[in-house]
Amino acid sequence: MFDPVEALKEFIRHPSVSADPAFKAGMAGARDHIAGLLGRLGFKVEVVPTPLHPVILAEREGPESWPHVIIYGHYDVQPADPLNLWTSPAFEPEVRRERLYGRGAADNKGPLLVHVAAVARLLERRPDLPLRITFMIEGEEEMGSPSFPAFLDAHAPRLKRADFVLLSDTGSPRPDQIVITCGLRGLVLCDVEVTGPRTDLHSGLHGGVLRNPIQAVAELCASLHDAEGRVNVPGFYDDVLPVEAWEREQLARLGQSEEQYREFLGIPAFHPHKGFTPFEATRFLPTLEFNGIGGGYQGEGTKTVIPSKAFVKLSCRLVPNQKPEKIRELLYRTIAERMPKDVTYRIVDQHSGTPYVVVPPDRPNTPRDQSPVLARAFRAADSAIAEVFGKAPLYLREGGSVPIIADIKRVLGLDSVMMGLFLPEDNLHAPDESFHLGVMAKGIAASERILEGVAAGGR
Amino acid sequence: MFDPVEALKEFIRHPSVSADPAFKAGMAGARDHIAGLLGRLGFKVEVVPTPLHPVILAEREGPESWPHVIIYGHYDVQPADPLNLWTSPAFEPEVRRERLYGRGAADNKGPLLVHVAAVARLLERRPDLPLRITFMIEGEEEMGSPSFPAFLDAHAPRLKRADFVLLSDTGSPRPDQIVITCGLRGLVLCDVEVTGPRTDLHSGLHGGVLRNPIQAVAELCASLHDAEGRVNVPGFYDDVLPVEAWEREQLARLGQSEEQYREFLGIPAFHPHKGFTPFEATRFLPTLEFNGIGGGYQGEGTKTVIPSKAFVKLSCRLVPNQKPEKIRELLYRTIAERMPKDVTYRIVDQHSGTPYVVVPPDRPNTPRDQSPVLARAFRAADSAIAEVFGKAPLYLREGGSVPIIADIKRVLGLDSVMMGLFLPEDNLHAPDESFHLGVMAKGIAASERILEGVAAGGR
Repeated sequence: MFDPVEALKEFIRHPSVSADPAFKAGMAGARDHIAGLLGRLGFKVEVVPTPLHPVILAEREGPESWPHVIIYGHYDVQPADPLNLWTSPAFEPEVRRERLYGRGAADNKGPLLVHVAAVARLLERRPDLPLRITFMIEGEEEMGSPSFPAFLDAHAPRLKRADFVLLSDTGSPRPDQIVITCGLRGLVLCDVEVTGPRTDLHSGLHGGVLRNPIQAVAELCASLHDAEGRVNVPGFYDDVLPVEAWEREQLARLGQSEEQYREFLGIPAFHPHKGFTPFEATRFLPTLEFNGIGGGYQGEGTKTVIPSKAFVKLSCRLVPNQKPEKIRELLYRTIAERMPKDVTYRIVDQHSGTPYVVVPPDRPNTPRDQSPVLARAFRAADSAIAEVFGKAPLYLREGGSVPIIADIKRVLGLDSVMMGLFLPEDNLHAPDESFHLGVMAKGIAASERILEGVAAGGR
Repeated sequence: MFDPVEALKEFIRHPSVSADPAFKAGMAGARDHIAGLLGRLGFKVEVVPTPLHPVILAEREGPESWPHVIIYGHYDVQPADPLNLWTSPAFEPEVRRERLYGRGAADNKGPLLVHVAAVARLLERRPDLPLRITFMIEGEEEMGSPSFPAFLDAHAPRLKRADFVLLSDTGSPRPDQIVITCGLRGLVLCDVEVTGPRTDLHSGLHGGVLRNPIQAVAELCASLHDAEGRVNVPGFYDDVLPVEAWEREQLARLGQSEEQYREFLGIPAFHPHKGFTPFEATRFLPTLEFNGIGGGYQGEGTKTVIPSKAFVKLSCRLVPNQKPEKIRELLYRTIAERMPKDVTYRIVDQHSGTPYVVVPPDRPNTPRDQSPVLARAFRAADSAIAEVFGKAPLYLREGGSVPIIADIKRVLGLDSVMMGLFLPEDNLHAPDESFHLGVMAKGIAASERILEGVAAGGR
């Protein structure tokens, strides 16, 4: 048995920044560390090369009659900049009060080690546990997992025979209130680039005869929402399913006040969203957001140009039952119809599109078309979390999009049980990232019970 | 007598980029060169320090009964970047065919030397010419003349007793068709900065509850023009004077086709401007243009943020009889009324405002409230240009704004006779800037006649 906190410290000491080639040694170190841990637990470890960073596949094999869980995680981390804002160095782990500080502590090294430690304890106690376990640990999550879909395709014949995926790469509101994430929004991304004159023009000599591409972009953007804040793309809401009563009921138990949320965002007021609380709006409604806009002179002072080009970066978050392909088509058609004819434009598709994900837990009034093993995993998670953390979990959809969860569903046909172990205070992707050691200890105990519960029933 | 082409080559060899402190020696060299020329012509030369780059004041004094002309020019130039796009090095003058290439050849070293050479010839031929001449040559024009208004204030008692200003810092369409610029548009500039959330937010976790500042900026921008391309700021056109028939008639003689102009701009179509040709629109109509816009992620690929801030840089060109103060007030009030209340914003005033300028030439049906000396200068310019270039000049307003002309009128009360010597092919502010040597030679002859004509009539 290893000490999970010491293992996490060692994991953090390997600076595994996937996006920066300067951290090649850190990537290899982090990979070796986690591969070594799993090897010592008796797993058959394979380091599968990809065009960029290898995926670790570690298997505990067994007969077909044993349930089979895939545990997902990632060993790469975000860059640690700005370094000067860290209280202790990003890659020198330090415990202060109930937290362990360091880049990757929460995203995702700590939560990943929660499941490794749970497996270690469980197998020490029950070496003959009838459960097949495959760790699937990638090294490109913080870059958008570019190699992961091809990896899944290549290993699909082997992996798709598993029963479900277990992971902790989502959030919970408080240390005593764990969330099981049962849905994620989908995503469609594109840039719209508008060209007016062939070159930047003097706005005095030529202003007044042509449409400024900034104006064309602004007019397009302004047309994409109505006064109530709804997306003004014909057909956009056609396939949106109504929210189920149990989902609103779960969310109402989140226990956050609108006023606190408004203060956290630092805005004078919420933007209208008729019939939805702010907490509902971010989870249950689709959106169209502007992630970036640019054109012309952006420096200090002034430069009186009419720019040749301007652009906007758009993204749509999708909810059940919106399809990325259809939304993209509606959006592109709307842009084409509204774009004035005295400019030219092109759309740069930034992403093949991520579908929404729903994993309805095994609860009253939810669809029960899931496999017996998955249904048992949800029941085990429910009772394990209730017992260990002292409160039943909440079942919530999250507003974000995790492409790998959609990929796993699409390629392998597997649903994911997502036990949220991040807290808002963990500072993901920011200086002074940390992981709550109490959550870590309880997470290990909960994961151990979940896995034991899954094993208990056979297939 | 000096050789004007050699003098221009030497002038260009001093790289006088005012905006870049690395060119301090070039600024001093250019200043010494022009001051030396004027000193050798017998002028009393003074180099007047300013907070940045000195102004050269060079005077040929005489009795009060002599007319007094101020000749304006600037010895500084634009940066020469991108250097690799120059056929011959920017600061190594080279004659190819009928042109002299080099940074500043046309803007403004060549046209300035036109007047210096004209004065040299005239005084060689008529050493006792009854004309007071003051050269006023600044070194910050390419930076927006920041020190110039204070310089004018300080020297107003002395300078305001002159009769008019002569300069060549505007354009003409062809070597044989010279324009006397008799109006310039005014200018009001500001930035609008919108703040939404206190920090950039994850557009998945928070998208759908708040107004994106990019959306707020886009909605504001989209509201500022109507479908006919008119500025949609209440009261904006209230003070605009109708265009006089002689102005349209002059412009019709410009001899450019709309199709050529459209191709030059490289646009699919002109933006509607009811009742105005494109050539009229750029000169006679006020505008509101977007010079820059920015916010959120602008790099390659995607970053799904809701930015904390977005901004737009606006400018209005003003025509007679619009006042900058009033337009600014109307604009700011409109922005305040239209800005949604769920974001905050601030307006950064980028400029105190440049009024429009009109210098009605001495023509039938134009106001004749000008001084006899100015009226004589216009008549002399008209006949000199007709004789030397073979075609009567056109009297046109230009769409650009030259703050120093407005400053000279405001502080000194003096009108300017602007003989346009730039051609569209001169590549002002661009690589391969050049000055047409035929225009230079004829310009010298015309300037000589203008000055002689002004001197002829006394005061």
